[in-house]
Amino acid sequence: MQGKKVSESFTVMNEMVLPNDTNGFGTLMGGRLVYWMDIAASIAACKHSNLPCMTASIDNLSFKNSIKLSNIVHVEAQVTRAFNTSIEVYLKVWGEDMLTKHQYESNEAFFTFVALDANRRPKAVPPVIPVTEQEISLFDGAMHRRQIRLILSGRLNPDEATEDLKNFFVRK
Amino acid sequence: MQGKKVSESFTVMNEMVLPNDTNGFGTLMGGRLVYWMDIAASIAACKHSNLPCMTASIDNLSFKNSIKLSNIVHVEAQVTRAFNTSIEVYLKVWGEDMLTKHQYESNEAFFTFVALDANRRPKAVPPVIPVTEQEISLFDGAMHRRQIRLILSGRLNPDEATEDLKNFFVRK
Amino acid sequence: MQGKKVSESFTVMNEMVLPNDTNGFGTLMGGRLVYWMDIAASIAACKHSNLPCMTASIDNLSFKNSIKLSNIVHVEAQVTRAFNTSIEVYLKVWGEDMLTKHQYESNEAFFTFVALDANRRPKAVPPVIPVTEQEISLFDGAMHRRQIRLILSGRLNPDEATEDLKNFFVRK
Amino acid sequence: MQGKKVSESFTVMNEMVLPNDTNGFGTLMGGRLVYWMDIAASIAACKHSNLPCMTASIDNLSFKNSIKLSNIVHVEAQVTRAFNTSIEVYLKVWGEDMLTKHQYESNEAFFTFVALDANRRPKAVPPVIPVTEQEISLFDGAMHRRQIRLILSGRLNPDEATEDLKNFFVRK
Amino acid sequence: MQGKKVSESFTVMNEMVLPNDTNGFGTLMGGRLVYWMDIAASIAACKHSNLPCMTASIDNLSFKNSIKLSNIVHVEAQVTRAFNTSIEVYLKVWGEDMLTKHQYESNEAFFTFVALDANRRPKAVPPVIPVTEQEISLFDGAMHRRQIRLILSGRLNPDEATEDLKNFFVRK
Amino acid sequence: MQGKKVSESFTVMNEMVLPNDTNGFGTLMGGRLVYWMDIAASIAACKHSNLPCMTASIDNLSFKNSIKLSNIVHVEAQVTRAFNTSIEVYLKVWGEDMLTKHQYESNEAFFTFVALDANRRPKAVPPVIPVTEQEISLFDGAMHRRQIRLILSGRLNPDEATEDLKNFFVRK
Repeated sequence: MQGKKVSESFTVMNEMVLPNDTNGFGTLMGGRLVYWMDIAASIAACKHSNLPCMTASIDNLSFKNSIKLSNIVHVEAQVTRAFNTSIEVYLKVWGEDMLTKHQYESNEAFFTFVALDANRRPKAVPPVIPVTEQEISLFDGAMHRRQIRLILSGRLNPDEATEDLKNFFVRK
Repeated sequence: MQGKKVSESFTVMNEMVLPNDTNGFGTLMGGRLVYWMDIAASIAACKHSNLPCMTASIDNLSFKNSIKLSNIVHVEAQVTRAFNTSIEVYLKVWGEDMLTKHQYESNEAFFTFVALDANRRPKAVPPVIPVTEQEISLFDGAMHRRQIRLILSGRLNPDEATEDLKNFFVRK
Repeated sequence: MQGKKVSESFTVMNEMVLPNDTNGFGTLMGGRLVYWMDIAASIAACKHSNLPCMTASIDNLSFKNSIKLSNIVHVEAQVTRAFNTSIEVYLKVWGEDMLTKHQYESNEAFFTFVALDANRRPKAVPPVIPVTEQEISLFDGAMHRRQIRLILSGRLNPDEATEDLKNFFVRK
Repeated sequence: MQGKKVSESFTVMNEMVLPNDTNGFGTLMGGRLVYWMDIAASIAACKHSNLPCMTASIDNLSFKNSIKLSNIVHVEAQVTRAFNTSIEVYLKVWGEDMLTKHQYESNEAFFTFVALDANRRPKAVPPVIPVTEQEISLFDGAMHRRQIRLILSGRLNPDEATEDLKNFFVRK
Repeated sequence: MQGKKVSESFTVMNEMVLPNDTNGFGTLMGGRLVYWMDIAASIAACKHSNLPCMTASIDNLSFKNSIKLSNIVHVEAQVTRAFNTSIEVYLKVWGEDMLTKHQYESNEAFFTFVALDANRRPKAVPPVIPVTEQEISLFDGAMHRRQIRLILSGRLNPDEATEDLKNFFVRK
Repeated sequence: MQGKKVSESFTVMNEMVLPNDTNGFGTLMGGRLVYWMDIAASIAACKHSNLPCMTASIDNLSFKNSIKLSNIVHVEAQVTRAFNTSIEVYLKVWGEDMLTKHQYESNEAFFTFVALDANRRPKAVPPVIPVTEQEISLFDGAMHRRQIRLILSGRLNPDEATEDLKNFFVRK
């Protein structure tokens, strides 16, 4: 199967934080943000594979700054690497107060999707062709993250990991 | 500060999957599920602390079976352990087809919350008192998960982890 | 048909009052609460019958205390008794201010559902087996409430009521 | 206080049943309908009193025909009578299939609202002036319904009812 | 095909502005208002044609006064004229502060819809029979507005317009 | 006041059409699309001005192809020109079926916004600096469109238009 570039499925989403998206503090609820991230990431996975994709897993997410009411949520989603029938998507999320121009980091995340055929069975997807330095770096770290993911979900024995155990804890 | 039992803040949520919660397959979107889980978990954290709580992080999440349109989503949230101003919450999610009585696992998850005072500064919360075997086991594993979380988010050097490195990969 | 216990279909729902659920006073709108109660009650009816259920009627509802923004809505729904193809569900709703631990009554209610087969025709459901004192009391009062309901909706002549007329006005 | 005519606060609402308003049968969920009815009724109560109004109670509701996806929901709300600080509102709801012109009854209902001042304390509202035969009939039956309501919610002893007990069961 | 009167499909909608409908100023967002107008207008078009209708175009819209949180949005929609398979609908929108009885203009608009058969192909609709002076005036101006619309969307050459060019700029 | 480039406030939005966004045909409702366009356009206006902006008007909108359930809605919004306190925003909207890679035009639109100070009074905004050929063309046509807008909303007499009348009908 012919590979596809990261840029072909790059997805941008901008949302405005409305009252019902906020908690008692007037800041965006974590779960609401993940809802948007999931849609952005699934668009990227679907554009890459031209197949419907279901969310298979979400890696550790850490919310750095909370995004305020009426501020903008910027979400950028790009595929990093495909593993046969699954696709890893990298997301970068930040907030912006348009009145002061202040931009602030919210989080980075990795979502994995599985592509499905018409009978809902996993189907192979095109390989990802990384071009820029950042794309190559994300591509290279993908096997590492995949093994952490499989170990944490109990589907891979740590002893069978092909990646260097000591480096598992350096987030790439 | 006096400790509180897990059962005092145990939270149950049942939701029915409506059309707008589903993707093109007629199954619950991952992000929508995390939205509900975040509300259930924050209720548990808030009941435990009697303080408003903000989502600080979500641990690796793996979706096992997708939940279908008109099926029920069961979410159970319980606090596992408090670390000064932060609270870890354990969630168990499963689907149920009420017509066939079939129940199926969706996922397990750990969310962490930080409790805030009226000025939005972190504030200490009561310790958690685990009672049942399951509560004690979750309490005991919390330090382990906390260190993985800190390492994965770049806030703890693996060399400084007090937990045994080799066992990090055994999900507790 | 074999009976089923009340506890087999007992349903708990916890919701957080978000801005869009409130009126100009910052309190939960009555209609929004009934929306949640209807979902909780229909889950209970559907779990009991293992059939899809449609709301047939709602008994007199009186809202005692209004539930505030960011407070928790607790809804508990349990089947009380089945009448061939219809199921009565009892709901208890209260609010909770998690910061002060204050819990306050909102309302009690009775919803009735009709179970349907695949052709949307009413279908018989299992009898309810009440076990606890509260369940038995709700079971015993169900015929009484059913006759009020039928009379109020013009489907039963007061003279044909088998229950004692004078006691109709004592809510059981 | 000067009275106001029913027609001054008459309120009409038309909604289209969208996918997320429906249950597994593709028909409007009962709770969703009550949500719309509550908004229509509170608009009528608020227009009559020129005060913010909170839902105090909903009388027995019986759903006659279920309204289908893409059909229209017609809601008409009119005040019937005021009792010092409370206002009774009558609602008539029917569905319409615009393609076949078929109109079908859904339900009739009575909601009661309490008007509040700026400190959220009950405040007196203008009396209702009924003009048409239908308005007068609804006005006349209001005391009757009010006493059923108070008895059913335990706030009035049946022996103290001023209305004829035997006639309580004839819905007016 | 037999004509139908304007009054046969006249549609009224009342909505209350809830928190999530507002921008940072606490006033109704323009897009949210158009969402409601589109539903009201499509109900009117559908009632006139007894066919499903899709929005084809929206004429220039100018928002005069913004509608505030908790105020009422009044929308009235009436068909003005049919052109074979398309229907023009006129909308009048105003806000109302129920506490002060203040009513204020929001906007007037013209939406056009195309009626479709079961295969989604345009299908002829009944002519509109205007009766009142206002209905006749709207009917008479419809050809004028239609030509502006076609010219502005590039589907009609200004030289081919049958209406007087100089008068194009007098909104009728 | 110093001018700002178009690219500084360029805004991209991608949304997935969910069931509740669709009409009975399974295609995106026009009003729902305008809701998204309004948010995207107001983000662009707000980024340009660093002031809160309210929708003042929407120019003639013509929907070319309807966007289907589960397809992607692409919205691009860019400021074209500022007129003291108002900002014109150009939007381009297209649909995409991710499974077939088919992209199809939906519409182009012009929204105008007015920027407000803290007292909700119009406030001057920076001029727009067009750079690319497309930006310059949109900038040049803005006065033309502004005059049509003012004439159509009755705020400018056609005789006072400074632009050539005959060319009014060539959409620029």
